[in-house]
Amino acid sequence: MSNYRIVIYVLGLLAAINGLFMLLVIPITLMDNNRALSAFLISGLLWIVLGGLTVLATRKHEKVIRKREGYLIVTTGWLILAFTGSLPFLISGAIPSFTNAFFETISGYTTTGASILNDIESMPDGILFWRSITHWIGGMGIIVLTIAILPLLGIGGMELFIAESPGPSADKLHPRIKETAKRLWAIYVFFTGLETLMLIAGGMSAFDAVNHAMSTLSTGGFSTKNASVAYYDSPFIQWVIILFMFIAGINFTMTYFALKGNLNRLWKNEEFRYYTLLTLVVGLFVGSAIYLIHPSWAVEPALREGFFQVVAIGTTTGFVTGDYTSWTPFITVIFFWLMFTGASAGSTSGGVKVVRHIIIIKNSILELKKLIHPSAVIPVKLNRKAVSEESVFNVLSFFLIYLMIFIFGAVVMASTGLDFKTAIGSSLACIGNIGPGLGGVGPLDNYAAISPFGKWFLSFLMLLGRLELFTVLILLTPFFWRKN
Amino acid sequence: MSNYRIVIYVLGLLAAINGLFMLLVIPITLMDNNRALSAFLISGLLWIVLGGLTVLATRKHEKVIRKREGYLIVTTGWLILAFTGSLPFLISGAIPSFTNAFFETISGYTTTGASILNDIESMPDGILFWRSITHWIGGMGIIVLTIAILPLLGIGGMELFIAESPGPSADKLHPRIKETAKRLWAIYVFFTGLETLMLIAGGMSAFDAVNHAMSTLSTGGFSTKNASVAYYDSPFIQWVIILFMFIAGINFTMTYFALKGNLNRLWKNEEFRYYTLLTLVVGLFVGSAIYLIHPSWAVEPALREGFFQVVAIGTTTGFVTGDYTSWTPFITVIFFWLMFTGASAGSTSGGVKVVRHIIIIKNSILELKKLIHPSAVIPVKLNRKAVSEESVFNVLSFFLIYLMIFIFGAVVMASTGLDFKTAIGSSLACIGNIGPGLGGVGPLDNYAAISPFGKWFLSFLMLLGRLELFTVLILLTPFFWRKN
Repeated sequence: MSNYRIVIYVLGLLAAINGLFMLLVIPITLMDNNRALSAFLISGLLWIVLGGLTVLATRKHEKVIRKREGYLIVTTGWLILAFTGSLPFLISGAIPSFTNAFFETISGYTTTGASILNDIESMPDGILFWRSITHWIGGMGIIVLTIAILPLLGIGGMELFIAESPGPSADKLHPRIKETAKRLWAIYVFFTGLETLMLIAGGMSAFDAVNHAMSTLSTGGFSTKNASVAYYDSPFIQWVIILFMFIAGINFTMTYFALKGNLNRLWKNEEFRYYTLLTLVVGLFVGSAIYLIHPSWAVEPALREGFFQVVAIGTTTGFVTGDYTSWTPFITVIFFWLMFTGASAGSTSGGVKVVRHIIIIKNSILELKKLIHPSAVIPVKLNRKAVSEESVFNVLSFFLIYLMIFIFGAVVMASTGLDFKTAIGSSLACIGNIGPGLGGVGPLDNYAAISPFGKWFLSFLMLLGRLELFTVLILLTPFFWRKN
Repeated sequence: MSNYRIVIYVLGLLAAINGLFMLLVIPITLMDNNRALSAFLISGLLWIVLGGLTVLATRKHEKVIRKREGYLIVTTGWLILAFTGSLPFLISGAIPSFTNAFFETISGYTTTGASILNDIESMPDGILFWRSITHWIGGMGIIVLTIAILPLLGIGGMELFIAESPGPSADKLHPRIKETAKRLWAIYVFFTGLETLMLIAGGMSAFDAVNHAMSTLSTGGFSTKNASVAYYDSPFIQWVIILFMFIAGINFTMTYFALKGNLNRLWKNEEFRYYTLLTLVVGLFVGSAIYLIHPSWAVEPALREGFFQVVAIGTTTGFVTGDYTSWTPFITVIFFWLMFTGASAGSTSGGVKVVRHIIIIKNSILELKKLIHPSAVIPVKLNRKAVSEESVFNVLSFFLIYLMIFIFGAVVMASTGLDFKTAIGSSLACIGNIGPGLGGVGPLDNYAAISPFGKWFLSFLMLLGRLELFTVLILLTPFFWRKN
């Protein structure tokens, strides 16, 4: 446990890269009467200089990243992004309080999309663009995390789900990972571009289109409009966003094979099949319910509304086209349940992920079978291959810890004075990186009214959820810091 | 899978025994102007005759009870008790609808304590006594179930927690079980009698004292008063009930050793230590909160109120002395969490049980440790002994299935038109055999307003929870019925 230098090195690098991204916002501010221009100029240059100096100071370091450094880099990396990324909000005066600015920024980088802004549309374009960029960087980070780092660390059974992953046995970062990451980033950029063009074709302004596309592909959920996607009553725009949210919820490795023409491989992937089935069934169901509740609505708007919210919550994006908590209590509970599912592992979506639910359900059925045939050894199978007991164990533990933190989070949030529904909703929406929750943090509300302590605590939950729990939790254990 | 005769035989026996218990109510009806006398006379004789004839018809049967018959007997046994037990409610006209009568009765036998009666005090004494008896029989049933049947069937890691259990390897009921059951029943009867005397000493009428004692030891929660235990504003009575609820939540085998003077053995039991600690910490905490919220209250009433509700919910008894959902949202969420804990395995309490939480938390910490030391083999330890991987697996699966059914239950209940809080509260209060839940089924309300479908569904949840899920679920699988 000695290679701290590489940790500092990576953090410096991340700060500098974040600074570069800030400079990218400058053209936008120039087109917006220079609003927030100086904020991005100052922050960008500051982080490039400070980050660059750090990189220089630590450029002599061991090249090997071991597990411990891996854990440290992941958690502190996300924190340094959120910390440096909050500066433009502060300097521009868009979000004067540090608590709020940090909350908004970590909500961005964790692709949660929970906001404290009461009037989004009054913000300078640069600020809005920056919010979307934080999502987009977060999404890129998640892609590297899931294909490169989590399988290496063997977290929550992740090694199972990512095709071509180096597997948990390797003790250092695999060189092939760079290649894989580049490929998947290309897909990410490609789809962001494609969605932007399609949204423009649907009548959105170029600026709004880019922002929503970045927010979609990262399954983030920040919008440039106060009413979120409800602002656009164009069916085309809403269906396009539904489509791309769905795509963002697919394992990017699978999308890669599909784009290479190997659709068979995509369809053979059990998680993809269940994810598609779940989306179709629940979307149709909620759409039909909406149709029945609103006698004056036509079929298409009802189905669109149903599919939009089901995909938005299921993929943990959190865009809003309607107040799904006001339709009927039944649908509210359906969405409460959907908040637990998440989309596919290896996508940018948060939450538990469909594949873990598959493993848990299959294992539950096996447990029952074993009661009748106690001596039979029947493994859980995924994609027709047996899953090791250890991996199943990992998945079960992950989900249980997830649930315990969710309930603990609800208790903590209630202690800040929130009502039952808001406490539950805010805890679940933040650990699941969804954004809008229930009650006082529901789809028509935001997180502005949460107490400062509550905001810091929810920031912690967002980080926990985004980094698959263990990565962060392990830093809180004494044995992580003990010398070996 | 051929020995169905013994299943029918046991069911007949249970019906006849239930009939005998009904005749025991007759003296009470005689002291109450013969109200409901004929109901108990008719039902009692009917079930004795019908049950007796069934026993005679099936008295020639194989003596060996195998696993399959075991499962069938447990689930259908509880159902036959509830079915036969509902007759006095129907005949007397106390509960005219079969749905309501069945709900009230299965709520009794599962020691849940959820009621559909709007005016309890207007009921004939015989009916009130019968409600308490259903609890008490249910509690006796649970004692046999946990020491004899569940360990044999190897359910949910139960074999771990019950000292001197025959273990899951034996394939037929152990002869020693009869002895153990008798011993534990003696303790159960002894404490019921002791509590009755102490309640009388505190000023309760003999009738109310017996009823409350039966309700306490079975961790049921039916009261003879509309206001539940809040009716008695005697601190002595409330502290006595707190004490006996706590005792009812201890593993009865441990209580047996304690009564034999082996207090050391009791204290060495990890579950007992955590159960005690949890009760003290949470009770003190809630008591202090109540004290701070009510400036006019003295310390003792606040602590009493806190301890009463914490023990009532923690042991899944469900007696009520105050509306704990109205104090502050924070305390509501604490109780929501407490609804998940349950008391000790091997007690009459329902829910998940403290020992399962211990295993889950220890395993979670180990999972984190394994991330740093992947090759280390560190078993989960309970009472200083290593717990087998399989048992830990069992426990994790149990808790996950429990949570999935809870959420599924909330979705179903919401589909009947309940609001979010009531849907969640009713599902959790029934699967955990607690009784009062949250919202519309909170401590000051009851289940009368639930739809008939909802009542049947909640009855199913009570049965599932009471029989440790697997026992019931396995009957719903195709492989249970497949010929081997």
